[in-house]
Amino acid sequence: MKCYDTCAAMRNWRNFVPEAGDDVGLVPTMGALHDGHRALIRRARATCNHVVVSIFVNPLQFGPREDYGQYPRNREQDLATCQEEDVDVVFAPSVPEMYPSDFSTHVEVVSHLTRVLEGSSRPGHFRGVSTVLTKLFCLAAPTKSYFGQKDYQQALLVETMVRDLNIPTEIVLVPTVREPDGLALSSRNRYLSPSDRQAALVLYRSLEAGRRHILHGVRDPGQVERHMQQIVGREPRAHLEYLVVRSAVSLQLRKPLRGQVVMLGALRIGGVRLIDNLLVRVPESEGT
Amino acid sequence: MKCYDTCAAMRNWRNFVPEAGDDVGLVPTMGALHDGHRALIRRARATCNHVVVSIFVNPLQFGPREDYGQYPRNREQDLATCQEEDVDVVFAPSVPEMYPSDFSTHVEVVSHLTRVLEGSSRPGHFRGVSTVLTKLFCLAAPTKSYFGQKDYQQALLVETMVRDLNIPTEIVLVPTVREPDGLALSSRNRYLSPSDRQAALVLYRSLEAGRRHILHGVRDPGQVERHMQQIVGREPRAHLEYLVVRSAVSLQLRKPLRGQVVMLGALRIGGVRLIDNLLVRVPESEGT
Repeated sequence: MKCYDTCAAMRNWRNFVPEAGDDVGLVPTMGALHDGHRALIRRARATCNHVVVSIFVNPLQFGPREDYGQYPRNREQDLATCQEEDVDVVFAPSVPEMYPSDFSTHVEVVSHLTRVLEGSSRPGHFRGVSTVLTKLFCLAAPTKSYFGQKDYQQALLVETMVRDLNIPTEIVLVPTVREPDGLALSSRNRYLSPSDRQAALVLYRSLEAGRRHILHGVRDPGQVERHMQQIVGREPRAHLEYLVVRSAVSLQLRKPLRGQVVMLGALRIGGVRLIDNLLVRVPESEGT
Repeated sequence: MKCYDTCAAMRNWRNFVPEAGDDVGLVPTMGALHDGHRALIRRARATCNHVVVSIFVNPLQFGPREDYGQYPRNREQDLATCQEEDVDVVFAPSVPEMYPSDFSTHVEVVSHLTRVLEGSSRPGHFRGVSTVLTKLFCLAAPTKSYFGQKDYQQALLVETMVRDLNIPTEIVLVPTVREPDGLALSSRNRYLSPSDRQAALVLYRSLEAGRRHILHGVRDPGQVERHMQQIVGREPRAHLEYLVVRSAVSLQLRKPLRGQVVMLGALRIGGVRLIDNLLVRVPESEGT
């Protein structure tokens, strides 16, 4: 396994190692790798000749009051994970390597997709994501890039950006990996106390309840949302940011619900911010 | 010579025709090709295995009151020029091909470089330039890209963007081509009446006068600028936008003048907006 910390070394590997026609898979991460990342790596490993994992805690995608400084970093363990998963290249640059002091370019998707939910909760977040991903796509030139469904809105943003800028990579969305009790894996879960960890389950439980509501015939998004929000409301440790059901393609409100929809939620528990989502295909009702 | 009008066809050529190690040269143009463009193409032809010329009048880089509708378009003549210059591929997409109706991504360099001169005269212009160039760089994946010195500030912007986003292309700056009397070639020159054409020469003459001032020992940028502006002021048909001398690297004011500097000017004559610039290396004075 190669480990590069400069853009020049990463570029050099890309120019000279993969042969024409090879598939190069990129798994962009912020490190603190867990089984969700392993699922992305394994999916890449299953189809690509070369698998590149980037590890970079991207300061541009954290707001001034967010947890950039506290975000978990564990280089040794991440490298061991990559080795176990048979990764070919780890690209782990420093901040000044990615953003020299006179860095002044950004990439931004400006649409409904980036204004709502995470976009309104975390101003500047998506601009930071699209800027760093453009750099990684230029450096690693992946033919396929792997993203987790847990960051569903981010995946839609990346698909839009890649299409708009004609970046030659295929975006592969990999299902969320969960604990046995349903909690979505996240690098931030380690900051939950045992009782907060238990309370955090309310997010998944509310999404599941929303799904059952839809599968049982509810077509009014407001009714589904109130149902989910009531469930979270009964958990005093949870501070809800949003919990909605939207079109899975556009994140627009769709009334009545039809086609592929997504329930998305964000909440804070004990100073930790957690997000999760569930996709569901709305059954065709009689008469529609 | 191949001529493609879809992104898919351009991408397909790039994926399958050039071999590993080949140099692919891109000359991005808005068409209405003149001898300035020919100089770019010839420079590319001299060193690259494959030469791609893009022809696209990019609506994103025109302001609402600018001449997008009136910008000259002459497809047949442009193709004949490319054929004469032994171009391999002309990429000439339509506006909806480049910007589908839900297009929503932009690339922007935000710095002193893009705020001054053309940046302040033409709000949004550079954002349109950097967005379309990112797309062209992704589609044609040129190893070298050719830009004219006439658009000097644009060339600095492109160098910054390519560095910041790690776009794998080398930017080659090609000297401005001029008429025998000094007028810089421009697709917009054709809109000058004979007397305006004569008056337009004042821009080049003022830049030349500024150069002589510097070569004769003037080191105060204000003095050089006043001298140039007085020359333009004596031409009643010319409406000056700016005429300055700046660091050639940063476009910052440098006082006293030293190193490589650039004199840049923009003026309007008879409804036509013209720009020009001259580079000069400031001679080292005694005692410095």
